[in-house]
Amino acid sequence: MSPAEYLDSQKEQRLADYFDFLRFKSVSAQSKHTPDLRDCATWVKDHLTNIGMTAEICETDGHPVVYAERIVSDDLPTVLIYGHYDVQPPEPLDLWKSGPFEPVMLDDVIYARGATDDKGQVFAHFKALEAHIQASGELPLNVKFMIEGEEEVSSANLPKFIESNLDKLKADIVVVSDGSQFAPGKPAVTYGLRGIVFIEVKVTGPDRDVHSGSFGGAIENPINALCEIIAGLKDENHHITVDGYYDDVDPVTDLEKESWKKLAVDEKEYAKGLGLPEVVGEKGFTTLERTWRRPTLDINGITGGYQGEGAKTIIPSWATCKITMRMVPSQDPSKVSAAVVKKIKELAPKGVTVEVFEREATPAVETPTDGPWLEAAGRALKTGFGVDPLCMKEGGSIPVVGVFKELLGLNTLLLGFGQHDDNAHSPNEKYRYEDFEGGCRTAVALLDELSKVKS
Amino acid sequence: MSPAEYLDSQKEQRLADYFDFLRFKSVSAQSKHTPDLRDCATWVKDHLTNIGMTAEICETDGHPVVYAERIVSDDLPTVLIYGHYDVQPPEPLDLWKSGPFEPVMLDDVIYARGATDDKGQVFAHFKALEAHIQASGELPLNVKFMIEGEEEVSSANLPKFIESNLDKLKADIVVVSDGSQFAPGKPAVTYGLRGIVFIEVKVTGPDRDVHSGSFGGAIENPINALCEIIAGLKDENHHITVDGYYDDVDPVTDLEKESWKKLAVDEKEYAKGLGLPEVVGEKGFTTLERTWRRPTLDINGITGGYQGEGAKTIIPSWATCKITMRMVPSQDPSKVSAAVVKKIKELAPKGVTVEVFEREATPAVETPTDGPWLEAAGRALKTGFGVDPLCMKEGGSIPVVGVFKELLGLNTLLLGFGQHDDNAHSPNEKYRYEDFEGGCRTAVALLDELSKVKS
Repeated sequence: MSPAEYLDSQKEQRLADYFDFLRFKSVSAQSKHTPDLRDCATWVKDHLTNIGMTAEICETDGHPVVYAERIVSDDLPTVLIYGHYDVQPPEPLDLWKSGPFEPVMLDDVIYARGATDDKGQVFAHFKALEAHIQASGELPLNVKFMIEGEEEVSSANLPKFIESNLDKLKADIVVVSDGSQFAPGKPAVTYGLRGIVFIEVKVTGPDRDVHSGSFGGAIENPINALCEIIAGLKDENHHITVDGYYDDVDPVTDLEKESWKKLAVDEKEYAKGLGLPEVVGEKGFTTLERTWRRPTLDINGITGGYQGEGAKTIIPSWATCKITMRMVPSQDPSKVSAAVVKKIKELAPKGVTVEVFEREATPAVETPTDGPWLEAAGRALKTGFGVDPLCMKEGGSIPVVGVFKELLGLNTLLLGFGQHDDNAHSPNEKYRYEDFEGGCRTAVALLDELSKVKS
Repeated sequence: MSPAEYLDSQKEQRLADYFDFLRFKSVSAQSKHTPDLRDCATWVKDHLTNIGMTAEICETDGHPVVYAERIVSDDLPTVLIYGHYDVQPPEPLDLWKSGPFEPVMLDDVIYARGATDDKGQVFAHFKALEAHIQASGELPLNVKFMIEGEEEVSSANLPKFIESNLDKLKADIVVVSDGSQFAPGKPAVTYGLRGIVFIEVKVTGPDRDVHSGSFGGAIENPINALCEIIAGLKDENHHITVDGYYDDVDPVTDLEKESWKKLAVDEKEYAKGLGLPEVVGEKGFTTLERTWRRPTLDINGITGGYQGEGAKTIIPSWATCKITMRMVPSQDPSKVSAAVVKKIKELAPKGVTVEVFEREATPAVETPTDGPWLEAAGRALKTGFGVDPLCMKEGGSIPVVGVFKELLGLNTLLLGFGQHDDNAHSPNEKYRYEDFEGGCRTAVALLDELSKVKS
């Protein structure tokens, strides 16, 4: 029996094990769930031990990391597989159609918090190990797992863990399955992620909320001032107005233009899928170019003044907003962050105080598209999903991928098995059963393919 | 003994009675305080009965109105005195230096919720009645009181009460003491109030919060869109850009300019009093002109997306704001409201849905400055505070003043005894003892002065 055949023979048990994994309320953002995270980590350790790995729970200053390895031979390549067992908070609970921690399969779709992000995806790699060991008695290469419990809370303790375990984590390549295919039936290797710059702005006016009748007209209003600043950061073509913002942005190459044309995003369908009248973005670029190759500037939250029902006629004392910008390769996030701070201060109207707080600056990452690792991953995807995979970029950021490069000197293969509409951070998170099975098959094939790479 | 001498002889008892009034937790916005409002209304009724009025508690669909009258003769003028016994919520409680319902006097300043708004001011009129009746055995004119319990929650049931009691409320003039002097030592009669237009705006983007990495750049962000709209409503001179907004605004007259010059607002002190670096407003106008004679546009509250600690990298599904505009005489609030709605729709960027809700439109009011009533009020203020009073306008709006004009055909004398920095709607509401005494003396003199007016 081949590993693939073994995998196929275990469909029911595999689904049952997956559902067990999903039942843990491993919500890393909520301290009441600390014991659930510990229980979930223990389950992962035990599961990997039963499969045939040497597994341990590693303490950190936060939730623990599960580390496991099976070293076959020093002559074989070593893959480090990263994933996370923690999940996003399930709230708002009233929008869920079934319990977030009571997994169900309806019409070939599995619903649960963590179904796709990341339990369902990392679980495919667990089961690929099991299939190889059960069918062949051994793995075709050395495998290490690092499964953390704080990905949804910025992986605060992971860099320190990696730094303390540089030897243990030595490998030839990293594999991360914590993302999406290009579309249903269109699996893809992701070879680039945008970086991120995060800034907060606070505008302060009068030292208390004051009556908008008595003072209206005579003093600057912090909300109006903040809106003026925000509006001033983009022009009518959705071009960001910060000096030098685009200086280091490489132009979209002809090759990229050509290959992405084939991906043919139907912008009407794209808008419809989001409930939008139309898509809108930077003039002169397509939707894919806008999300994969251009930097952005979005307000993630804004607050100020009275937000309850009815009117409260005040000029509020302050207003704040959170701004994140996505960075593309060759942009220096710290330089961009500083330029944006400068621009915000230039835009600051008189009569109020404007404070800008630089919170985060993570660069974009790219994996070489012409290397043997990426080609191996592509072949595995073809085996798993039965079609030629695409090479794509992703607009989001996975800061740990940069950490792997920096601390371990390793490139990362990003093989997402989910879909963009899986509601990863929303109610009714889901994972298509077809993708669950395709992911498992891909993971089995991946071990074979990676074992053949001569690095 | 004259009424003024009687008043002076009762300082201690008067302060004790005032403190009793302040101890009621008559917070109209909070339903848990409904019994406290009833108790407070009963106290007002009993107090006025003991003074010598015929007083009753009148039920409404909300908190009751206390009505009281003493009719001396059909040949004498009748004054209707309006005030309110309800107060603003005391929250945030941790910012109070003493209990909001435990009045104290420190360094000749009384601290308590309602100290100035409006218990302290309306109480002056109670005690003026007492002084006249005790000293002279009778009032010099007919007096009616209408003291409501819902002023801080928009006087929702007052217009209906007035409509149902048109005969009972017949009078020659209304007196309201629910505001401020021009400044300490500068008492004033207020002869104009701005009106108000209240609009809410909701911008809707994707039908759920979406990942700002995956979708950033490809779709319009509702917060950025709302900020663009808000920023578009004013130009760099703080001029409102809505077509026709200023069409019906009368120019500031030379007489006004001249007389207001004498009021000499020290803009540095004004800014300092609010903790601001400087005052800012519509180009070409002074602070007084901006607050008394020019319409405004202020955002009272804005909300959208993630507002907690740290980052949540979303493009939110929606963003909203509350806009109020202050109207000046001869502006038609409904016309202005419609023009603003039109402008907001013109400013609405593509790719999102913009809804505008018209909530309120109340015109400005003015009392003729050359009439005998205003002159009588001026003389009373001079007696009460010992200096010649000013004639001033007020940027705020008191919608009931418009109701008196509309339903009873009556002009209103606005005699505010408080100060702008009395923290009327903030923690540590206060009332200077000097103003408390000046207000009482003014109220005593006012009854004499009004009794001499031939209407």
